[in-house]
Amino acid sequence: MDKIKVIQWGVGNMGSGMVKMILDKEGIEVVGAIDRKENEGKDLGEHIGIGRKLGITISSDPEKILREVEADIVLLAIDSFVKGVEKQIKLICSHKMNCITIAEEMAYPFIAEPELSKEIDEIAKANGVTVLGTGVNPGFVLDTLIITLSAVCRSVKKIRAARINDLSPFGKTVMREQGVGLTVEEFMKGIEDGSVYGHVGFEESIPMIADALGIEIDEVKQTKEPIISNTHRETKDVVVEPGMVCGCNHCGYGLKNGEVVIALEHPQQIHPEIENIETGDYIWIEGDPNISLCIKPEVPGGIGTIATAVNMIPHVLNAKPGLVTMKDLPIPHAIMNDFRMHLTK
Amino acid sequence: MDKIKVIQWGVGNMGSGMVKMILDKEGIEVVGAIDRKENEGKDLGEHIGIGRKLGITISSDPEKILREVEADIVLLAIDSFVKGVEKQIKLICSHKMNCITIAEEMAYPFIAEPELSKEIDEIAKANGVTVLGTGVNPGFVLDTLIITLSAVCRSVKKIRAARINDLSPFGKTVMREQGVGLTVEEFMKGIEDGSVYGHVGFEESIPMIADALGIEIDEVKQTKEPIISNTHRETKDVVVEPGMVCGCNHCGYGLKNGEVVIALEHPQQIHPEIENIETGDYIWIEGDPNISLCIKPEVPGGIGTIATAVNMIPHVLNAKPGLVTMKDLPIPHAIMNDFRMHLTK
Repeated sequence: MDKIKVIQWGVGNMGSGMVKMILDKEGIEVVGAIDRKENEGKDLGEHIGIGRKLGITISSDPEKILREVEADIVLLAIDSFVKGVEKQIKLICSHKMNCITIAEEMAYPFIAEPELSKEIDEIAKANGVTVLGTGVNPGFVLDTLIITLSAVCRSVKKIRAARINDLSPFGKTVMREQGVGLTVEEFMKGIEDGSVYGHVGFEESIPMIADALGIEIDEVKQTKEPIISNTHRETKDVVVEPGMVCGCNHCGYGLKNGEVVIALEHPQQIHPEIENIETGDYIWIEGDPNISLCIKPEVPGGIGTIATAVNMIPHVLNAKPGLVTMKDLPIPHAIMNDFRMHLTK
Repeated sequence: MDKIKVIQWGVGNMGSGMVKMILDKEGIEVVGAIDRKENEGKDLGEHIGIGRKLGITISSDPEKILREVEADIVLLAIDSFVKGVEKQIKLICSHKMNCITIAEEMAYPFIAEPELSKEIDEIAKANGVTVLGTGVNPGFVLDTLIITLSAVCRSVKKIRAARINDLSPFGKTVMREQGVGLTVEEFMKGIEDGSVYGHVGFEESIPMIADALGIEIDEVKQTKEPIISNTHRETKDVVVEPGMVCGCNHCGYGLKNGEVVIALEHPQQIHPEIENIETGDYIWIEGDPNISLCIKPEVPGGIGTIATAVNMIPHVLNAKPGLVTMKDLPIPHAIMNDFRMHLTK
């Protein structure tokens, strides 16, 4: 059997990481790469910094690559929003290729974009291919893992979970989105005009949990507060003086009749250790029985997203056609042997 | 659509718990009950102690119940071993009913009983029904949860996990199996003659993890050591004086070329708190990245097994025919709404 053939669409930090991970794996290979105009013509290996050529030239012409390169699946890592990937996904489907995207909203796009979700599902089914949105969060920590953990409960009354992580490794884009390095006033203005938006995923994770468990919610609310530093903190891209914003405490709540039934908290900041904040992933299920889980330190965001996306490839190739989510597929897992050993069809 | 109809086969502690859980749920009902001769003719409701009749008479004649009562699935809770349930499972399949069993060996029976596994798979397929073995452990804590958690890893080098729990709530059978209340000498003799056997599940959980992740192992080894109490401990069924055995430290190891790649530790004892042993479930993945998870206190064994078995009913009814395991099915979860909402076919 031929190796599983992957086209990497988007070779920024996440996309590059996926290519590197696939290079380390058996039974799977990258056969094409699509990225922005500025990277057109570069060798993929040189671009991702592995110190050697891969003989794959990055193209900025998706139509051409999808038409000319034969592949089983496209890994799409270019945007966080359904509106930023829907045309690309439809194009991928129309070429009869499966797709995994790390666009956060695609993890469970039915609430934010019901119409586009339906269109993607239809075009995937019409072409006999499967589309999945995944990543570390949404996609794993604050949804898949919570859903899985609930299996040992006879009943679930309320769910609270928190992902407390360190933003220090991330670059300028993330700092801007999270409002790091701003004054409190600038942060508030950024929230208002949408330039500071925190985490993308609560409108996905909360309905995914609710639908999986059959918990009724009638509203999803979000709060975004500045995390104000009491000390000097800095990364290679940003400096935060005392009184300035070092992160965004973004929370999402699923409510029923005004009462919180699902609460997800995601305070993200640079250098939390400076003020003795311990990072970690936490899940508390109030039910029968109560369950309290922690992962310390937290699952690292970048690696976790790269790994989840690549590890889900066989499950997506095995799945029935259409737009699917993590809750529809078999339990996810790492793959240490030949990827083809995990194909069932 | 009719409610999902369940026959409960085995109404001891676990089976009774399953019936009670189903009574609290929507879209699903118990329609028949099978148990030993001594419970023949009793009303199921009175037998399980809910203080009212259910109008279901416990029968000790499986053939009769399976022939006369129409049901979608049988919950089988009578034994830990494949050899103790295989005839029953085959009978259930031949009546074209699906089956979930909490027999520990059935969670992943391919190593302990390859021939019987094949036979069960064949008879299930021939009758268009699905058979699943599950429970809290094996079935969840030391396999499904570990496998799921590995999804965020680019690679996994070694897995260590521990389930440290309290045996105090359990009855005489469990105390005997675990050697609680014996002298060290009696314990050692019990291990030798098989009357003390500790946990049933390492030959299932370890290969399940290895197969799911594609980690090679060439041997599963087990060690069983007495946990010797330094203090007086007692439960309603057993008294342990200092120097006597209060539990069994049972460990399972998956090895490759003599090196441990999967280590599962399961020390079970009565009243661990007396000697400051904290109960909990722990998973450590050595890989890229390392992951350290804990659940404190541990997932309770009885409720966890009951919940997992009942919660998996829709997934089993949705599954393709044959003998399946937790790693083949969609992510498990609690069900708080009508069970029929989770059926896809």
